[in-house]
Amino acid sequence: MGGKIQSLPGFRDFYPEDCAVRNYLFDRWRAVAHRYGFVEYEGPVLEPSELYKKKSGGEILGQLFHFEDRGDREVAMRPELTPTLARMAAARGRDYKKPLRWFGIGQFFRYEKPQRGRTREFYQFNVDIVGEPSRGADAELVAFAIDLMRDLGFTADDFSIRLSDRDAWTASLEAEGIGAGDPAPFLNIIDKMERERPEVTADALRGLGTSREAVDAFVAGAGAGGHFSPLLEDLAARGMSDFVEVDLGVVRGLAYYTGTVFEVFDKGRGMRAVAGGGRYDNLCGLVSDGAADMPACGFAMGDVVITDLIRETKRANAQLLTHLQAASAADVYVVVADESRRPDALATVQRLRQAGHRVDYPLAPAKVGKQFGQAEHLCARAAVVVGSEFPEVGVKDLLKRSEDRVDVAEMPGRVRAVLDSPPEGPHIA
Amino acid sequence: MGGKIQSLPGFRDFYPEDCAVRNYLFDRWRAVAHRYGFVEYEGPVLEPSELYKKKSGGEILGQLFHFEDRGDREVAMRPELTPTLARMAAARGRDYKKPLRWFGIGQFFRYEKPQRGRTREFYQFNVDIVGEPSRGADAELVAFAIDLMRDLGFTADDFSIRLSDRDAWTASLEAEGIGAGDPAPFLNIIDKMERERPEVTADALRGLGTSREAVDAFVAGAGAGGHFSPLLEDLAARGMSDFVEVDLGVVRGLAYYTGTVFEVFDKGRGMRAVAGGGRYDNLCGLVSDGAADMPACGFAMGDVVITDLIRETKRANAQLLTHLQAASAADVYVVVADESRRPDALATVQRLRQAGHRVDYPLAPAKVGKQFGQAEHLCARAAVVVGSEFPEVGVKDLLKRSEDRVDVAEMPGRVRAVLDSPPEGPHIA
Repeated sequence: MGGKIQSLPGFRDFYPEDCAVRNYLFDRWRAVAHRYGFVEYEGPVLEPSELYKKKSGGEILGQLFHFEDRGDREVAMRPELTPTLARMAAARGRDYKKPLRWFGIGQFFRYEKPQRGRTREFYQFNVDIVGEPSRGADAELVAFAIDLMRDLGFTADDFSIRLSDRDAWTASLEAEGIGAGDPAPFLNIIDKMERERPEVTADALRGLGTSREAVDAFVAGAGAGGHFSPLLEDLAARGMSDFVEVDLGVVRGLAYYTGTVFEVFDKGRGMRAVAGGGRYDNLCGLVSDGAADMPACGFAMGDVVITDLIRETKRANAQLLTHLQAASAADVYVVVADESRRPDALATVQRLRQAGHRVDYPLAPAKVGKQFGQAEHLCARAAVVVGSEFPEVGVKDLLKRSEDRVDVAEMPGRVRAVLDSPPEGPHIA
Repeated sequence: MGGKIQSLPGFRDFYPEDCAVRNYLFDRWRAVAHRYGFVEYEGPVLEPSELYKKKSGGEILGQLFHFEDRGDREVAMRPELTPTLARMAAARGRDYKKPLRWFGIGQFFRYEKPQRGRTREFYQFNVDIVGEPSRGADAELVAFAIDLMRDLGFTADDFSIRLSDRDAWTASLEAEGIGAGDPAPFLNIIDKMERERPEVTADALRGLGTSREAVDAFVAGAGAGGHFSPLLEDLAARGMSDFVEVDLGVVRGLAYYTGTVFEVFDKGRGMRAVAGGGRYDNLCGLVSDGAADMPACGFAMGDVVITDLIRETKRANAQLLTHLQAASAADVYVVVADESRRPDALATVQRLRQAGHRVDYPLAPAKVGKQFGQAEHLCARAAVVVGSEFPEVGVKDLLKRSEDRVDVAEMPGRVRAVLDSPPEGPHIA
């Protein structure tokens, strides 16, 4: 190959404006996690491939970036965090008081056909409670997901939580005498139902002595008796009833989860799952060969779909834009109006940075007009002009286009006043 | 393989206490970058292997985690960020006003023998100025590195900047008539000098008509005329002279850099380079096949050595510990003293979280004593006790061991007061 080297298909470059959006999302993820009393952890991006083979959901294996390393180990770039969490909890879980409230923010990799909403790398927010079997933990996670969406600027008009439960399905199987005591074959069919051709699903269900019509009727019945009451009452106590609906049609991952399953559902045109999770009481034991058999539940949100949804949703997007505008590259630009005064300008730069301001200045001699142009390009609010009158300097409010000339000793206070003053001039509230 | 799956050699698990240290470092990196007016970007963790073959420093190739992906592409997990920066600048650099002040924080991978201070993955802070040929940019980076170290709690007793310059070496070669106009063979020898057996270096230098003694004498001469004056004067204007020394013995990367070279040097027992960089005016053009031939300079700091150095340095470590202590997992613990009041407790949790506090509570019924134990374990400062007297609740200061009983309507204000009060009781300053 010759010519320009390009990035790999499905891998994103985060130019500063993209990285700012990514960081906004990370900041919100972290802020809500902290309010919920969760602490952050992180595992390696590369793991033994075996870690992903242990998990029942074989679907992921065909999408792994995996290879043999120089030490002849079968290794894989992680497609998800949960197996790593189970490995870490198995290795040192006893050092921590249960329940663990752990969250992670990291990058994951799947070799899929790149398309809208699907890249080969993505960031994911993973939130898990380990060591607590009660449904109170399930409710806490659903509440977390709701507050996360609200924190991002979404309302009950934009999203809902669709609640399902593996146990509700298995109870129904038993009542109907389907599957002869082993729910796995049935749940596998249900799990694949949304992606499978209808006639294949119908055939498979017929083989187990039931039908698509019976399944649809069960989903439509929805209530499933009082099965969801504890969860719904918990969320009602938090004032969150408007955000939750029982929907037994949420079937993805039923073969993997062991109890509650839920997804955050985009109610707009997209109709996408933007996050999902549930209870997975067997996984830690499975990955650790029984060394850490702990109940656990969790959910994950990727960065790609939620970022699309923010962009498409007026209120959420306005909140993002407000955030981006506030984070200019520089608060203060130091103008070198006389090159012989550059040392004084550098001292000024240093002083302003020590006061905590974001400061830029011309690295090489440049015309004063060009320097002001650069200051405006950076959206700096204030400029300090260092010229032949030094130690007298100019302090400019670049928004109000006003200037004060002060002794350099008074400069930091004057800059502070400019940065703290409302953009529109003083208002009386 | 059977039994417990372990992490790969040289790859770290970041348990919450480790992740908190990592995040402290990331926060300081970002804070100083913002003061210096830099904006963040990020590239993919996986790149075409070719991107790393273009760079002259072939040393890295033998350490790559590389493989053929499912689409028969030769790909590599990135060992460094600079080639990606050059690729990104070549692709879209013209959309941005020069100079670019860009920084990145990400993970990198090298297949090396794991040992103290050397892992197979590491985080690295990359700071680059692209599109500015002047030495003012070099000085800005050196100042950045100094302020970064100070921000982490280090003083001039702990570290210094060792300054070198490829041009100073080539000027000396010309003056001495060594290398017949091509400095590359000579600089390659110098570049490898620190790691090579002395007799091999001596032989090689003799082949070029000079000697190890002559080289050592040149390094000892150090000043190299006024070559470093512009840089030193710039740094002096910022009050940073104490942190800088010219040291032509800094030779690593001379074959790669095109002008100024510097490293942040640990003056303590470790005597390690904790960060390093310089000017690399040819790389963008090289990686982009001439499409983006831009002058550039930058430096990078990895997380492993600097974290060791922080831990070993009293003042820096004390600052880290103070930060970690302030970041407890929960500010407020809501005690459910009467299970029939759990819905009121959940509403209280929700209210406190909406006020921005970090809140934890028992997910399942637990004895009150155990709940207070958990609150102390989490280092929560306040507890709110919801029991049979609701809407009267208890607000406890867990540090001062005092309690107020208030109506739940007054609870948020009382919690705020506890969290804001100094730990030792009110002092008059």
